[in-house]
Amino acid sequence: MSFDAVDVIRAKRDKGELSDGQIDWVIDAYTKGDVADEQMSALAMAILLNGMNRREIARWTAAMIASGERMDFGKLSRPTADKHSTGGVGDKITLPLAPLVAACGVAVPQLSGRGLGHTGGTLDKLESIPGWRAALSNDEMMQQLEDVGAVICAAGDGLAPADKKLYALRDVTGTVEAIPLIASSIMSKKIAEGTGALVLDVKVGSGAFMKDLTDARELAETMVALGTDAGVKTVALLTDMSVPLGLTAGNALEVRESVEVLAGGGPADVIELTVALATEMLAAAGVTGVDPAEKLRDGTAMDAWRSMISAQGGDPSAELPVAPEQHAVPAPASGTLSKLDALAVGVAAWRLGAGRARKEDPVSAVAGVEMHAKPGDQIQEGQPLLTLHTDDPTRIERALEALTDAVAVSYSYQPGPLVIDRIG
Amino acid sequence: MSFDAVDVIRAKRDKGELSDGQIDWVIDAYTKGDVADEQMSALAMAILLNGMNRREIARWTAAMIASGERMDFGKLSRPTADKHSTGGVGDKITLPLAPLVAACGVAVPQLSGRGLGHTGGTLDKLESIPGWRAALSNDEMMQQLEDVGAVICAAGDGLAPADKKLYALRDVTGTVEAIPLIASSIMSKKIAEGTGALVLDVKVGSGAFMKDLTDARELAETMVALGTDAGVKTVALLTDMSVPLGLTAGNALEVRESVEVLAGGGPADVIELTVALATEMLAAAGVTGVDPAEKLRDGTAMDAWRSMISAQGGDPSAELPVAPEQHAVPAPASGTLSKLDALAVGVAAWRLGAGRARKEDPVSAVAGVEMHAKPGDQIQEGQPLLTLHTDDPTRIERALEALTDAVAVSYSYQPGPLVIDRIG
Repeated sequence: MSFDAVDVIRAKRDKGELSDGQIDWVIDAYTKGDVADEQMSALAMAILLNGMNRREIARWTAAMIASGERMDFGKLSRPTADKHSTGGVGDKITLPLAPLVAACGVAVPQLSGRGLGHTGGTLDKLESIPGWRAALSNDEMMQQLEDVGAVICAAGDGLAPADKKLYALRDVTGTVEAIPLIASSIMSKKIAEGTGALVLDVKVGSGAFMKDLTDARELAETMVALGTDAGVKTVALLTDMSVPLGLTAGNALEVRESVEVLAGGGPADVIELTVALATEMLAAAGVTGVDPAEKLRDGTAMDAWRSMISAQGGDPSAELPVAPEQHAVPAPASGTLSKLDALAVGVAAWRLGAGRARKEDPVSAVAGVEMHAKPGDQIQEGQPLLTLHTDDPTRIERALEALTDAVAVSYSYQPGPLVIDRIG
Repeated sequence: MSFDAVDVIRAKRDKGELSDGQIDWVIDAYTKGDVADEQMSALAMAILLNGMNRREIARWTAAMIASGERMDFGKLSRPTADKHSTGGVGDKITLPLAPLVAACGVAVPQLSGRGLGHTGGTLDKLESIPGWRAALSNDEMMQQLEDVGAVICAAGDGLAPADKKLYALRDVTGTVEAIPLIASSIMSKKIAEGTGALVLDVKVGSGAFMKDLTDARELAETMVALGTDAGVKTVALLTDMSVPLGLTAGNALEVRESVEVLAGGGPADVIELTVALATEMLAAAGVTGVDPAEKLRDGTAMDAWRSMISAQGGDPSAELPVAPEQHAVPAPASGTLSKLDALAVGVAAWRLGAGRARKEDPVSAVAGVEMHAKPGDQIQEGQPLLTLHTDDPTRIERALEALTDAVAVSYSYQPGPLVIDRIG
């Protein structure tokens, strides 16, 4: 059945519901180029301002899935579970998590992306490991899942091509911040990927996409409903992103910190969130009686990490690159560190070269921000609080500008929970 | 100063006001192609849903004027006045009006358009006169205004090119129906054209763009304020478009009816509106003591018409073309005709070939609908009520479908006023 693009736009513009037929048609026609970019962007703005109900979001997601291929992990000898984070500063959790969950007997098919803006990308981080490659064929991915149990690789062009096209359009038309479009974008890729279980890490706070708990909760609930309706066991954790995760933000810096966690050390918050997400993934995959914290301590997660990196051409024993330029930022006063703003640290790392402004830009493996204290820690005026890493000293000034209001010192600090809530 | 398109879109999306600098920049950058169609369509949708205030609309209009050239009629020996109708079914008023006002001593520089959808275009109508041409250079236009006092011709590409580009975009993105964008589109062209006075015929009713009196009044008030602020003496009449104007809808059919009015005859409603608009144009141009109704009766308006048509290559004495296929539609009952729906008649005329679906389509000179009665007239069951004119008999069936609910017969009919209100 055929529809008219202007009629579909008008229906949503006038606060109507789009029918299943209209949604199927508009996504298919947009993928083929029969609906023009300028028509889809007008529709996206109407959706952003007038919303979509649950049925519309579910159908929109299904139509995006139907625009491409679907993977099937049914032939694997173990259950599958995947994780998706909505993105944050210092969020390297995927790196220790995927091998940890594999070490517990659940296969992790982690299709990841590159960073855009102030949040880093998992593939960018792993590419700081000499030899490691992100591109795998579907067969290579399946074989690695069977042999090693964990894969972190780039999503192929075949999954939800409508989403790929729409995401690029939203980025340049001010229509990114629409919960129905964010939820359907994430879930179309994850459902098409074919995972049996999915744990969502929905971040809230200054360094997150969602600054507000109400919005983050709505996004989480929408995605859990979409996954559940599609037969994927789906759970979401709402987690704090007002402070960076761990003590590093940057590509090689975060790999180094992840390896520390896999070696049984590392910052407490990274360990806590890695174990919390692993516990949810195991439960969602139906695996019980395994303690992920133990697998970090006993070295089996590290073994899985080394196998996973090697399988994709990386050398897990290689030295990671180090920044030629390092600039210490002293603590402004003595006392309790009461604020270390995630957004400011993320923007500073980005400006130092860790992230990209446009998707064609290269990233620096060594650039980023190293933190020597976290909120609640005692600090001494003049002692190094942050170290800025870059290959380009001219970038330091603008990074420092981003950090102007990043830090505060006070008498005390009342920490909030890292895991704020669980949905599903 | 430079801005970012996404920032401008977001500002309006989030119900903010656009600054003068943002508006100037986005219109200029869009005209040059630095702001993409998909960005402008997202902005247009945000404007449609979130509105613009008076300052924003005035600046948007000024920026569209500044995108092109401005004409200047200051050297003419007489004052100028122009008329713009928001479009209706059977609205041939420009044809008798321009020569009538010229005959009263005021020059009429009428830049017109072609029809799209169910309302006809003035240029399409005049092109049914053998030899007549719509395209004039600015010099030719100026000379004809001086010699004849009236010109009806196509707007050149130099006036408000930003509007030309934006109008085409709005047409395919469901963003036509935004009062700020309609008002600025009309007024940018009229102000750039350089007329000294402007009378707006804002139509309301089923056959009009504005179905609702509140919307029509808001549009009229917005346009009057824009014109007045730009130094153009501007007045608007709100007029009824629930019934077609006159007894014809179609290109040659409407020219024939216009000539009847210029000959001192013709339907009462066409005469009434022509004289009402002429009276406003003369007053706005500062000409007093002339009775336009008298100029219709004494033949001087007809003389001006003949001069105007001849000056553009047309033969005012030539036979107009006649449709080879004519199909009578009988009255469904005897009694008082109580309904003759403007939209239905307009769609029927369009389907018979009088209008175009896409701007590249040709139109038929002969196609259209002839009416043998108007609401309030007594009709007899089975007697011809309408005659459908076309060159293509296969079009008749779909025209009849459009007319299914067009007509009603009852005991009586209470006419409303043709001129509903005056603003300015």
